[in-house]
Amino acid sequence: MATKLTSSPNSLLLQNPYRHNLLKPNSSATSFSNFATQNKPISIRCAATSTAAVSPIPANQDPEDRVFNFAAGPATLPANVLQKAQAELYNWRGSGMSVMEMSHRGKEFLSIIQKAEADLRSLLNIPEDYAVLFLQGGGTTQFAMIPLNLCKPDDPVDYVVTGSWGDKAFKEAQKFCKPKVIWSGKSEKYTKISPYESLEQSPDAKYLHICANETIHGVEFKDYPTPKNGILVADMSSNFCSKPVDVSKFGLIYAGAQKNVGPSGVTIVIIKKDLIGNAQEITPVMLDYKIQAENNSLYNTPPCFGIYMCGLVFEDLLAQGGLTEVEKKNKKKAELIYKAIDESNGFYRCPVEKSVRSLMNVPFTLEKSDLEAEFIKEAAKEKMVQLKGHRSVGGMRASIYNAMPLAGVEKLVAFMKDFQARHA
Amino acid sequence: MATKLTSSPNSLLLQNPYRHNLLKPNSSATSFSNFATQNKPISIRCAATSTAAVSPIPANQDPEDRVFNFAAGPATLPANVLQKAQAELYNWRGSGMSVMEMSHRGKEFLSIIQKAEADLRSLLNIPEDYAVLFLQGGGTTQFAMIPLNLCKPDDPVDYVVTGSWGDKAFKEAQKFCKPKVIWSGKSEKYTKISPYESLEQSPDAKYLHICANETIHGVEFKDYPTPKNGILVADMSSNFCSKPVDVSKFGLIYAGAQKNVGPSGVTIVIIKKDLIGNAQEITPVMLDYKIQAENNSLYNTPPCFGIYMCGLVFEDLLAQGGLTEVEKKNKKKAELIYKAIDESNGFYRCPVEKSVRSLMNVPFTLEKSDLEAEFIKEAAKEKMVQLKGHRSVGGMRASIYNAMPLAGVEKLVAFMKDFQARHA
Repeated sequence: MATKLTSSPNSLLLQNPYRHNLLKPNSSATSFSNFATQNKPISIRCAATSTAAVSPIPANQDPEDRVFNFAAGPATLPANVLQKAQAELYNWRGSGMSVMEMSHRGKEFLSIIQKAEADLRSLLNIPEDYAVLFLQGGGTTQFAMIPLNLCKPDDPVDYVVTGSWGDKAFKEAQKFCKPKVIWSGKSEKYTKISPYESLEQSPDAKYLHICANETIHGVEFKDYPTPKNGILVADMSSNFCSKPVDVSKFGLIYAGAQKNVGPSGVTIVIIKKDLIGNAQEITPVMLDYKIQAENNSLYNTPPCFGIYMCGLVFEDLLAQGGLTEVEKKNKKKAELIYKAIDESNGFYRCPVEKSVRSLMNVPFTLEKSDLEAEFIKEAAKEKMVQLKGHRSVGGMRASIYNAMPLAGVEKLVAFMKDFQARHA
Repeated sequence: MATKLTSSPNSLLLQNPYRHNLLKPNSSATSFSNFATQNKPISIRCAATSTAAVSPIPANQDPEDRVFNFAAGPATLPANVLQKAQAELYNWRGSGMSVMEMSHRGKEFLSIIQKAEADLRSLLNIPEDYAVLFLQGGGTTQFAMIPLNLCKPDDPVDYVVTGSWGDKAFKEAQKFCKPKVIWSGKSEKYTKISPYESLEQSPDAKYLHICANETIHGVEFKDYPTPKNGILVADMSSNFCSKPVDVSKFGLIYAGAQKNVGPSGVTIVIIKKDLIGNAQEITPVMLDYKIQAENNSLYNTPPCFGIYMCGLVFEDLLAQGGLTEVEKKNKKKAELIYKAIDESNGFYRCPVEKSVRSLMNVPFTLEKSDLEAEFIKEAAKEKMVQLKGHRSVGGMRASIYNAMPLAGVEKLVAFMKDFQARHA
């Protein structure tokens, strides 16, 4: 269970298991800031105690030394998954070798990739007529791979652009087909999503592309537009496996693993099988879904260790009760931060329209913007790191993916309130 | 120091530190085969004792349990590198996070990728006017990326095809330029390399492409042809960093990491800077060397953990004394196996011409080919795994990359002699 924290820094002190330290001369300060920097961080205990059955932590690894990492990706991973990976890194389950050393065509690795796929299918309830591919190159490679495989050079396709990533996807598609931006949130600094009924879709568009969650701007689709023609294609890099999704509504879903489900270097594609097999002639063999699907993602050597890590995360998500349970936790975490922002009397501000605020990435600014650097610096001292906003939007951003424990969000919210009390 | 083994299985027994076990009832057999399966493998000790300063092995990791892994790639990694990676997987050097969780733009990961590049530059003495890129997609992605970046669609280029990989590279290039096979070893089952003076190079070829070491066929260039026009391009996936190379002779060198320098999922490209910036219009942004070079391999999220692992391997290679020392070890290992083959009176056979035999991949067959399955099975029982030859050539293949300890080769050679004695 997570350590129960209330929203007041003072009550936090009272519940701190290390509060006897307050008796020491150098920890007599009463501010939350001083307290937290002079005591062991209490909150990481919650992550450590939420683990399923795993090997014991090696003696030289003190979980108290971990930070709360709010990075937008690569991002924090579940502590129990890391501990399991660590325990079996040198010798995977009696095989006599590391996962990193296994032939990708050997029985050991085949069991790993097949279980990873099966568990992902279970998590997202992926229909039989969809292929699951484990690829390389990130979402950015998909920006090219999608039009190369789904379009001829003159085919029209539609893009709804709700942030920087949708914009990049549109620009890359210009090399391979005739994409059109049918709506863009740019003039409103990417803080909204158009009502779907007012989208002017091209009648012959081969697909309608959306970015389901814009990592930089914190804008998330809560449901999905229906393509007038063709299929719906979604970049789910930053909210993949954060909640249940009806895969059958999509022709293609893609996601870089490094936000919610693993380390960087793995890209997951879920594609309806009848869309496979129409690549343009100029498609590099590695970017042809047909080659990858026919070879079960093993046409060449895949990123084996990354796929293994994704598999461990899928196991963990299933052990948590699946994506319905995961979504509940993510909603609770996001509500805590947005509430702290909205009840700050304008001290903190989130520019995103409430109905489309992301559960994964919470961008916010300070009314007194000259305090932002101090906010980030003080938070880092208290072992809450990577809170700086993307350079294109400034301010702060708290990325709170699946693996961010509730205790991390509670600690951040307590810090926000304390910071406000000291600077309002 | 490696445990000294002689070539006789009997003398091997005498030197085995666990020979007291022979007194046990169940280990009284005198054959090498029974001995090795009923005792802990002795040879991995050599790898473990050759490590530089590393963290202690966690209590649940007994190095005696490791196998000798002769896989062609992903392949065995240095034991000390794996131990170091294991020790710091959960919390990298006091950062409070795993390398897998680090923002690729944060100071921690930047220090990792910059050191990896610096160490690789030092190892290969890479000139300043060459860029080093850490990419994704394996050598197969380079098969497309090279012509897309170095050619216009009508440009002629030359390929010397000494095995399956060179052939694949040629076929992929057909999509993007006008490649010509100026020599192929196919009719002689890829066992030779043409004398360079008889290569009929195209006068206007933009580049001359070779595969420096054919992983499947065990054919390795010992020196390099000089392009009549244009530059020399080499796929060094399976002998990268196995010996010193004069980088200045090449326009471009590329290598998947998963043989000699790391896990799968990282592709290293060393390219002369003045070749960058001429990509065809249809080049996906991720396949444009200019984008990758301008962004120091960080245009999008790179395969961070894989790059970190490569960095640990580079450190280890430098600690061994650099590639001159590494080559000495590799020569010694390869000589042991080829000698065992050549002195077997035809019991074992290597089809490759002696002057171009690979130091990395040793393919061999049995005169009595019906014994090959038994050979592979018995070897696996003695913890020497992945000795089966590629499905396209059959027989056996011992891949003995940098990280294969001498003791592993000695054990294999002793086993080969014992097997021959029992089956000749």
